[in-house]
Amino acid sequence: MRTTDTPGGIRSGANVRLMTRAVTPGSYDPVTNGHLDIIGRAAQLFDEVVVAVLNNKTKRTLFSTEERIEMLREVTAQWPNVRVDSWHGLLVDYCRENDIKAIVKGLRAVSDYDYELKMAQMNHQLTGVDTLFMPTTPAYSFVASSLVKEVATYGGDVSSLLPKSIEQRLQQRLDENR
Amino acid sequence: MRTTDTPGGIRSGANVRLMTRAVTPGSYDPVTNGHLDIIGRAAQLFDEVVVAVLNNKTKRTLFSTEERIEMLREVTAQWPNVRVDSWHGLLVDYCRENDIKAIVKGLRAVSDYDYELKMAQMNHQLTGVDTLFMPTTPAYSFVASSLVKEVATYGGDVSSLLPKSIEQRLQQRLDENR
Amino acid sequence: MRTTDTPGGIRSGANVRLMTRAVTPGSYDPVTNGHLDIIGRAAQLFDEVVVAVLNNKTKRTLFSTEERIEMLREVTAQWPNVRVDSWHGLLVDYCRENDIKAIVKGLRAVSDYDYELKMAQMNHQLTGVDTLFMPTTPAYSFVASSLVKEVATYGGDVSSLLPKSIEQRLQQRLDENR
Amino acid sequence: MRTTDTPGGIRSGANVRLMTRAVTPGSYDPVTNGHLDIIGRAAQLFDEVVVAVLNNKTKRTLFSTEERIEMLREVTAQWPNVRVDSWHGLLVDYCRENDIKAIVKGLRAVSDYDYELKMAQMNHQLTGVDTLFMPTTPAYSFVASSLVKEVATYGGDVSSLLPKSIEQRLQQRLDENR
Amino acid sequence: MRTTDTPGGIRSGANVRLMTRAVTPGSYDPVTNGHLDIIGRAAQLFDEVVVAVLNNKTKRTLFSTEERIEMLREVTAQWPNVRVDSWHGLLVDYCRENDIKAIVKGLRAVSDYDYELKMAQMNHQLTGVDTLFMPTTPAYSFVASSLVKEVATYGGDVSSLLPKSIEQRLQQRLDENR
Amino acid sequence: MRTTDTPGGIRSGANVRLMTRAVTPGSYDPVTNGHLDIIGRAAQLFDEVVVAVLNNKTKRTLFSTEERIEMLREVTAQWPNVRVDSWHGLLVDYCRENDIKAIVKGLRAVSDYDYELKMAQMNHQLTGVDTLFMPTTPAYSFVASSLVKEVATYGGDVSSLLPKSIEQRLQQRLDENR
Repeated sequence: MRTTDTPGGIRSGANVRLMTRAVTPGSYDPVTNGHLDIIGRAAQLFDEVVVAVLNNKTKRTLFSTEERIEMLREVTAQWPNVRVDSWHGLLVDYCRENDIKAIVKGLRAVSDYDYELKMAQMNHQLTGVDTLFMPTTPAYSFVASSLVKEVATYGGDVSSLLPKSIEQRLQQRLDENR
Repeated sequence: MRTTDTPGGIRSGANVRLMTRAVTPGSYDPVTNGHLDIIGRAAQLFDEVVVAVLNNKTKRTLFSTEERIEMLREVTAQWPNVRVDSWHGLLVDYCRENDIKAIVKGLRAVSDYDYELKMAQMNHQLTGVDTLFMPTTPAYSFVASSLVKEVATYGGDVSSLLPKSIEQRLQQRLDENR
Repeated sequence: MRTTDTPGGIRSGANVRLMTRAVTPGSYDPVTNGHLDIIGRAAQLFDEVVVAVLNNKTKRTLFSTEERIEMLREVTAQWPNVRVDSWHGLLVDYCRENDIKAIVKGLRAVSDYDYELKMAQMNHQLTGVDTLFMPTTPAYSFVASSLVKEVATYGGDVSSLLPKSIEQRLQQRLDENR
Repeated sequence: MRTTDTPGGIRSGANVRLMTRAVTPGSYDPVTNGHLDIIGRAAQLFDEVVVAVLNNKTKRTLFSTEERIEMLREVTAQWPNVRVDSWHGLLVDYCRENDIKAIVKGLRAVSDYDYELKMAQMNHQLTGVDTLFMPTTPAYSFVASSLVKEVATYGGDVSSLLPKSIEQRLQQRLDENR
Repeated sequence: MRTTDTPGGIRSGANVRLMTRAVTPGSYDPVTNGHLDIIGRAAQLFDEVVVAVLNNKTKRTLFSTEERIEMLREVTAQWPNVRVDSWHGLLVDYCRENDIKAIVKGLRAVSDYDYELKMAQMNHQLTGVDTLFMPTTPAYSFVASSLVKEVATYGGDVSSLLPKSIEQRLQQRLDENR
Repeated sequence: MRTTDTPGGIRSGANVRLMTRAVTPGSYDPVTNGHLDIIGRAAQLFDEVVVAVLNNKTKRTLFSTEERIEMLREVTAQWPNVRVDSWHGLLVDYCRENDIKAIVKGLRAVSDYDYELKMAQMNHQLTGVDTLFMPTTPAYSFVASSLVKEVATYGGDVSSLLPKSIEQRLQQRLDENR
């Protein structure tokens, strides 16, 4: 039997254990069904999941940081323990400042893995924060925001790859940019 | 603020949340420093970590299931939320019967990943249990029980790869088998 | 405009072109939905597809060569240009004797690819027969006969991974062997 | 016995079967011996092979789309069933508009494969068009247009990697750009 | 017993053998502990090791070619048979002009390997110079100059990844650029 | 100018430098053109190359250790600084006992690399001996002894994959075993 007596803490008998908070970082430009698959599954495993949008001024994105946050809030509203935020700078600093113990990443393919492995080992050495890789559901294994945008730009049907409301905003933005 | 009012459950305000239990399955024949690295880090992230020893009658092992459990209990005693057990049959059945939500695996190299990815996707489809891959600490990235046994058999020095007590038992067993 | 005037030949104006026959080799012990995905798609691309069952006396299989052929005939009956056969020895010899120009293989993962690539290059050098790799449909990317048998042996539900009639024969065979 | 009685169709007894047309897409900036290896082998397997040059206004190329087409026509003239064309937009739309059933790609290395696999799965889901990967002949496994151009720019000898006429045009263009 | 009687030559009995000189090429912007690991180990295996800094006018670097050479000279002074130089153009031309028989590269991960393999095969075909891949020490397997710079830019602690004097120059340069 | 005045030592001016000896370990059951490619190239880079045949009593081979040594001596006679030997036990012990500083291995494919990388890191940690990977010449990239034996067993033509004398001994041995 456990009781909590401090914010962010869980008491297990006599032992106090800190709440486990994980982060799922990304550009989310825009959020896809593949992202939601990972976020939803992480929400089953951790006390709180922070979806952190990369706010990188030097990288051009289709949607602004605020728009990406807004879209994520809308489609993750179904999970009460998911929170959306943005970060810039080092992810490990963000983790330290927010008591985040684990970075959770979806992994599609082996070539993703090599780069992500180096980042994970660097991050662990720098601050001790761990990275956990979660394989994407096979049906979403090929869904990347960049491919989705490219297909939609040329009029391809991406309705099976995105939540309906996100698809509408994507089409609208692409129309504006034409 | 959270309180628990049922065995294995955590209450968060009005919401009851089940305790998060993860399993780190393996042969552990015998346990290495690489294994301990993963077990210890998993123990920081989950409420309970079950170290599950594969009890496979058709596969020859150097140590019996009982011996492997005993050695693991000894070297994981430092983590109060780590429990050692054995399993046979399907790992996903073991997970279901023990309310385990996540399988945690150390991942050394890309070629490991492909096989493990198929297993993870199969396991997720069969029962919904998730697999999380945690990169090994670089210094342990080449430490596999099979290599350790091979090196020790020919008299190589493996003291940096195993806990001291495990190394002694390994030497003793190899001497008995000569 | 084309006309055929010899068995296995297609005339295109004055040019005679041989019919394109491909082979999808395998153990098929037993055939899975993943296999059928590849066979069916190959049947759209080639004039004739020969499903060739490996008849390897030294490798133990759950079903005999005859049983595997029978099951394949049953589940591929929907495609008129698919034929089932068995082979032993070198696949390239079988290709030469049967006027087969291409070997078609489903490819699940990168680690499969390396071994298959060497085989394909060896086969091409030996006889000029080409190997084409066709990515499996994501939903079947983890379905291998060996995993399916292992899961079924321990009572796991594999009904989504096999045609219904094949699943029944698999359960029956596993019951007989218990 | 087969006869064709409609454009693009092949009659096989009573069954009418559409001609199998495949596409080998690429930048071909310029065509190399590695490309020709794949085009020539595809021409043995399909009724018609369309070599489709990517016409991408936003990507700088050494040769214009028209020049790349002209060079390809010259060096593929030996295969009567090979046709050269250009495309922009989604390759799958081009396939649909031209009754193309298969995309054929040469595959050099494992790291190519991961990206190509995602594209292939996306393309299959969007329109049902299949992608077939054909391993390059080992002797050409390292020949990429970008490497060839880099080597030639610094005066390296690339005569074994390109058809003679293409090498001359490459040298000429590089001289013009100096 | 051997004697040398010509510059750069070693006589072994009646046979004269040329001195074996290897090159470790790179951007070294700046040199890291991972680079030094490879350079120092190569220095044990070859008569002379040339550390060659890529002088590429079109690629922006944090440090000038002269600065990178100066830093390398400082931190490799401990090995008498290591020499620092710069090159532009084709590495194989540099090798030919300097009687270099082998290119030595550290290899961190599998995804590095695919690209490097193509380069190595191209270089061998062009001039016969061989490339040898040396696995990085596990503890440095994630240390890349680009990651180090990114971490340092945001104030992360990189003191374990660089020689002390290099770290100071890196901090100073980043301060100047702010 | 250099002179040697001690066995295994090379004097370079006043500095004495030990001779660099490398080993190319393997089963060589039997030696192929792919092996000879690596041995010949290593012989250009090191003072002495020891071709070490694995003498493993528990692994069945087609040729005895003595036969494999004899065949290797015959086909490496062209290189005066190549010596053939056998070893059992740990390769690193053999290296230490024979003043060998480097293990040289041919590398065909990425999946080879992962396993070999772990072995290399283990060997380096145990005794400091380095492993260098040399990419195979593309034309030999698919030539493995096991594939060659399998093809030859079924009567396939392997004359382009082996030295002529080795091919004859292979055919003879396969005939004896029939």
